[in-house]
Amino acid sequence: MLLAIDVKRTIADLKTLAAFGKFESGVNRRALTIEDIAARAWLMGRMQAANLEASIDGIGNVIGVTPGCQRYIIIASHSDTVPKGGWLDGAMGVIFGLEIARALVETGESTDIGIKVISFNDEEGRFAGLLGSSVFCGLKTLDQVAELSTEDGITLNDALQKAGYAGQTIVTFDPVQDIAYLEAHIEQGPVLESNNRKIGIVTEIIGAERARVLFFGQSDHAGTTPMVMRKDAAAALYEFAVRFAEFCREYGSDSTVWNLGYARLEPGAYNVVARESELYIEYRDTSTEILGRIRKAIPELAAEIGTKFNVSHQFFPGICISPEVMDLKLLERIEAAAGRCDASCMRMPSGGGHDAMLFARKVPTAMMFVPSIGGRSHDVAEDTHEADINLGLNVLGEIVSDIIDNGLSVSNK
Amino acid sequence: MLLAIDVKRTIADLKTLAAFGKFESGVNRRALTIEDIAARAWLMGRMQAANLEASIDGIGNVIGVTPGCQRYIIIASHSDTVPKGGWLDGAMGVIFGLEIARALVETGESTDIGIKVISFNDEEGRFAGLLGSSVFCGLKTLDQVAELSTEDGITLNDALQKAGYAGQTIVTFDPVQDIAYLEAHIEQGPVLESNNRKIGIVTEIIGAERARVLFFGQSDHAGTTPMVMRKDAAAALYEFAVRFAEFCREYGSDSTVWNLGYARLEPGAYNVVARESELYIEYRDTSTEILGRIRKAIPELAAEIGTKFNVSHQFFPGICISPEVMDLKLLERIEAAAGRCDASCMRMPSGGGHDAMLFARKVPTAMMFVPSIGGRSHDVAEDTHEADINLGLNVLGEIVSDIIDNGLSVSNK
Repeated sequence: MLLAIDVKRTIADLKTLAAFGKFESGVNRRALTIEDIAARAWLMGRMQAANLEASIDGIGNVIGVTPGCQRYIIIASHSDTVPKGGWLDGAMGVIFGLEIARALVETGESTDIGIKVISFNDEEGRFAGLLGSSVFCGLKTLDQVAELSTEDGITLNDALQKAGYAGQTIVTFDPVQDIAYLEAHIEQGPVLESNNRKIGIVTEIIGAERARVLFFGQSDHAGTTPMVMRKDAAAALYEFAVRFAEFCREYGSDSTVWNLGYARLEPGAYNVVARESELYIEYRDTSTEILGRIRKAIPELAAEIGTKFNVSHQFFPGICISPEVMDLKLLERIEAAAGRCDASCMRMPSGGGHDAMLFARKVPTAMMFVPSIGGRSHDVAEDTHEADINLGLNVLGEIVSDIIDNGLSVSNK
Repeated sequence: MLLAIDVKRTIADLKTLAAFGKFESGVNRRALTIEDIAARAWLMGRMQAANLEASIDGIGNVIGVTPGCQRYIIIASHSDTVPKGGWLDGAMGVIFGLEIARALVETGESTDIGIKVISFNDEEGRFAGLLGSSVFCGLKTLDQVAELSTEDGITLNDALQKAGYAGQTIVTFDPVQDIAYLEAHIEQGPVLESNNRKIGIVTEIIGAERARVLFFGQSDHAGTTPMVMRKDAAAALYEFAVRFAEFCREYGSDSTVWNLGYARLEPGAYNVVARESELYIEYRDTSTEILGRIRKAIPELAAEIGTKFNVSHQFFPGICISPEVMDLKLLERIEAAAGRCDASCMRMPSGGGHDAMLFARKVPTAMMFVPSIGGRSHDVAEDTHEADINLGLNVLGEIVSDIIDNGLSVSNK
């Protein structure tokens, strides 16, 4: 099956899509904003123009299906963005799916295996991260998510009503029809670029966990209160942060990452000892064992430091997303496909979460990355060289073509 | 000279004063707000009722002078408060001065040495800390301070106009007339209470210095960017804070204090590596040598940590107030006066800055503290037991009486 992949119209579609919510050199298109709703309508129109059976379902997922097939490869990602994000993140994977399905329809051949292209709603979490794919996978019902709301108090229910999606059928994963899940994405990190490789083949999507730690001391005059009499919530926070990093370095692996990107001190003044402090903690790893080790250490460390600084503490566990392993056979077939396209590739974990992670336990699932210039993402500076987009699109087309021709169970190495 | 000190009317005056800008159990009376202007007018009225020659000068200092004397003991403090502060801080020292001057006038005796009671404007720094006393001491001219402004953009010039003080004569320190400076104040710390003493005799007012350090890294995805590739401004801040505290512990003295009460991280999220961080640094000591050592260490440490974390840094020195030693002979006479009043006392440095520090190089200067309950200050929770207020007032009256009777040069031990 030779798919006549057309990179020009793919780039043209990506650029048209980027105009919805254009912001500086990037895109500001959060889920279910006017810009996002317009982009979904346009995307459905492009699917229809490609003779796909297209719809927007009751949770806002945009779905385009090649007609007349018995089984399907899902090629999906998301077209919503973070606030002031990049033009490719998510969008690229969706338009890759559109182009490959379009090329398949254009062959005029009747195939047993077709393509479902999906843009999942709200991957980035305006209401909740991985929202559309969670509902598609049956992990959450519409009732369970209807009352979710944005930071400024808009409920999902109201936003779906306004968009005209409310009341539409919810399309869900079909364990008989849907035989594989593929997602292309920008890397969002500097690893491919610094290794001078063009394709990243994702071995696993790392797990991510969050927690908050608060320390409660006492506001005192920072000149008149001797150090030994202080209950300094700021000092406790600083020491916790340094000790937490030391713990992760000592008991994590080389691929363990963590971030302490938000800290709050009250009242926050030169001359007042902080009475309260709060620290956001995030850590990620592919190893459930390491994640568990860090998870266990946080409240222990907070207690130890609370005692040392004579402050009380609270610990709030946050989200806890397990690592997911991608399908090894699919991974090998993508490597082979990359080889046929003369694309240098490397295996790597995905440090970011993706819709793909919800499919890994349901169906053979794989992800591939293209390089991000300077590793930048979730920022208007995010970009990928057009030649790299082209190569990524062709590798994805090659693996889809291989699966359509040979099925899933054949090794093509 | 027996002064008939009346603690009841002193407490009554303090309570009346506390009603101007009452906030919960404390007072919100920042300099040159309506509440503060009203309080100054009332204070001038109380001075006049005590037959003092009273005025409010061109910088807003309220001054009451016992009539017909050749030389004067200045008894002063301030009646402005920090935002949401306590009822005694500053106010107590002013009303103590009023009561002692009132008692002196009531003796009906003609004395060579009289009293100047002063409430200095804006000790707490709505426009600039120690504003009124700086102008009184000739350290700043009205022209130099006229364009100072509050955080919300009100200039001192406009505020003085509105208050009706602009254009009034500026009263300044008189090196011939003014022979001593006395200030009573709440301790603002827990030392007296924890040592079970009633009077603190200030040996020196510690110097205070401030600085800001900023680190500039790069915002990156906190999942996809390997730790070694990060430019994490938050991690640099945490390590700086811990290392700075270690330095102060190692190279400071037992009385060195420091505070890192404000930290800012940008953009401040779970999943974004901080691109920028800012830390406020304050440190205080009675030793100019130790202050200098810490001052020198800050940019060195910032540079070292910047290199370690691959982030750039900026260093901004802030205010730099030298420590001031109180007059040893006056100090000994206050101890003797406390002894005559059966008041347990101890020598101690003042960890907070006070108007008194500007007088130490001009004239024999002394300060005395009364205990703060729980060491609380600059908070509505600030308070002092009435018995302790009474004792402090009587000790101050006793030392004033001693100076009036015996002059400054006689030792009364």
